[in-house]
Amino acid sequence: MHMFSRRNIAIHPGVHRSAQFLLLIILLILAGACAPTTPAPAPAPETYPDADPLPSWNDGAAKEAILKFVKETTDESGPNFVPPDDRIAVFDQDGTLWVEHPLYTQGVFALDRIRALAPSHPEWSQTEPFKSVIANDTQAISKFTETDWEAIIATTHAGMTTEQFTETVQHWLATAKHPRYNRPYTDLVYLPMLEVIAWLRENGFRTFMVTGGGQFFVRVYARKVYGFSPAEIVGSSLVLSYQYDGGKPVLMREPKLFFMDDGPGKAVGIELFIGQRPFAAFGNSNGDREMLEWTGAGYGKRIMMLVLHDDPEREYAYGPAEGLPNSGVGTFPQSLADEANAKGWFIISMKNDWKRIFLFEE
Amino acid sequence: MHMFSRRNIAIHPGVHRSAQFLLLIILLILAGACAPTTPAPAPAPETYPDADPLPSWNDGAAKEAILKFVKETTDESGPNFVPPDDRIAVFDQDGTLWVEHPLYTQGVFALDRIRALAPSHPEWSQTEPFKSVIANDTQAISKFTETDWEAIIATTHAGMTTEQFTETVQHWLATAKHPRYNRPYTDLVYLPMLEVIAWLRENGFRTFMVTGGGQFFVRVYARKVYGFSPAEIVGSSLVLSYQYDGGKPVLMREPKLFFMDDGPGKAVGIELFIGQRPFAAFGNSNGDREMLEWTGAGYGKRIMMLVLHDDPEREYAYGPAEGLPNSGVGTFPQSLADEANAKGWFIISMKNDWKRIFLFEE
Repeated sequence: MHMFSRRNIAIHPGVHRSAQFLLLIILLILAGACAPTTPAPAPAPETYPDADPLPSWNDGAAKEAILKFVKETTDESGPNFVPPDDRIAVFDQDGTLWVEHPLYTQGVFALDRIRALAPSHPEWSQTEPFKSVIANDTQAISKFTETDWEAIIATTHAGMTTEQFTETVQHWLATAKHPRYNRPYTDLVYLPMLEVIAWLRENGFRTFMVTGGGQFFVRVYARKVYGFSPAEIVGSSLVLSYQYDGGKPVLMREPKLFFMDDGPGKAVGIELFIGQRPFAAFGNSNGDREMLEWTGAGYGKRIMMLVLHDDPEREYAYGPAEGLPNSGVGTFPQSLADEANAKGWFIISMKNDWKRIFLFEE
Repeated sequence: MHMFSRRNIAIHPGVHRSAQFLLLIILLILAGACAPTTPAPAPAPETYPDADPLPSWNDGAAKEAILKFVKETTDESGPNFVPPDDRIAVFDQDGTLWVEHPLYTQGVFALDRIRALAPSHPEWSQTEPFKSVIANDTQAISKFTETDWEAIIATTHAGMTTEQFTETVQHWLATAKHPRYNRPYTDLVYLPMLEVIAWLRENGFRTFMVTGGGQFFVRVYARKVYGFSPAEIVGSSLVLSYQYDGGKPVLMREPKLFFMDDGPGKAVGIELFIGQRPFAAFGNSNGDREMLEWTGAGYGKRIMMLVLHDDPEREYAYGPAEGLPNSGVGTFPQSLADEANAKGWFIISMKNDWKRIFLFEE
């Protein structure tokens, strides 16, 4: 997996211990840089007591708050101690863990699938919304209604077994590239957030993704990219039906919404799938509002954070909070910024708080 | 928690190591016997290589199959090795992990709640199904239709927040007793199955309960009784809605079914909540058929087992498989027994395979 595995490294037994440490850290960093889709696990806290668990973060209120939260909730002698069984942290995906512009990755997948399926559907050249997708009419696509998207989702996400859907997503991910970065979408994860996830896990937190995106779409790559098992993905889903194909049972994806994990649905999803109120919640848009509110309504010390995309140089800039452009994808309204400030939720400035955004950056 | 905690035991440093072991084992057994609702964790395999992990099982095909399954799926050099990430085991609850006769525990809870709420509902004395419940007319209750039970569930399980429901269940469990055993319902778990769960966990399996019962009902005691976290309970559930009570967000339980985790729904529930096909599945009735079928349809070595209640002396006897009485609760039809025999699913005979059923037995 990694170019530099421990097996290939002979550390002379006579080398001083701290020099071995330094060498190992350098190798771990190098290994990380060479394996973009497999983040190197952060070192265990007991082994590297002085290492910074959040090296991709600039010093500031956000970084300080995360470190303080972990320290206080794991300090058995302090007033904010959280028993290990109760340590739950939740993360939105699009715009919080990876890039969501110019369009949600799953939306790109759906449009690409329409184009791939078009040859077997000649009637689509005369029917909207398929016609605009096939013509790649970006202006028309940007104006698609909910009904248009429902037709696209029903065509590209339903009428197949869960196994067939998984394979289709796998094949797409292996070849699709982001138009701006010209890299696989799974490369576009935020290194600072991977560090937060790793640090929370090392401190006994169980971490879950709580995404408006499709539960079965995200599961395809979530273990490899973020280390989330399928059971740790709470997402939107379609109705599944138990059927037989040549005597073998299959689960068919029906063109009918089962659960919408967005807005208030995220609090419901947390209760249904996790069953415990989180102590930490990370989001970036209006769809995460209730998830943060629900998290914050529990007793004791909790941390709620929102990523603000204010870095057009390295990533994107959109709000419309703080006077940023209003893009319609991953909307962060001024009302949410005001509520965050009033309630003590932290706003993470991508531009100021993140020293490094992607693993592939130099 | 335990009467004999390590703190109270001074083991002299001069005592021989194996004598310390023996003493510790005796103390663990005593501690287990004195703490009926908190099963003592089985010893870790690397510490006690020669200990029997399933001491409450008689020697026989079922016990042998479980031990062989665990051995082969964890043997890296063998053909049936299962990587740790894929090790999933699922367990039905009613009749598989605890007593379900004469009525499902959650059914008893619902009837008790009707009686507790009756004083504030004088109209119930004239309205079915409430009238029969209040009069404790067991013959009428045994003939309740699905619509009757829906009315009872809507009244006793909905119209309250998830927190209020949890508290209600907690209070009920603290006082309710099983009519035959005169013990709390949470004492009526099957020790042999606790041993299987512990043995699978110690061998890297993630264990989940997949129950037709209410997800939020079972979660109240599942951690204490079985060691399942709330996220490890897949069950039936009602629609939840996000509301505010005095400015504070609450999740209201609506009188509308969200998900029925029974029959084919168990395979759907596994896919939705766990997202990986199990390698081991344990059930006891017709409602577990598809769960076992779905488990068995995967590649490689899998184990599927059904508990047959054929022990009227120590527990209950019902089928109607194998000529046992047909009770209507936890039905195990002959067709399921025939299918099990044809497909190599194991049937566990409570009478012959289980040396000891309950922790409270002498």
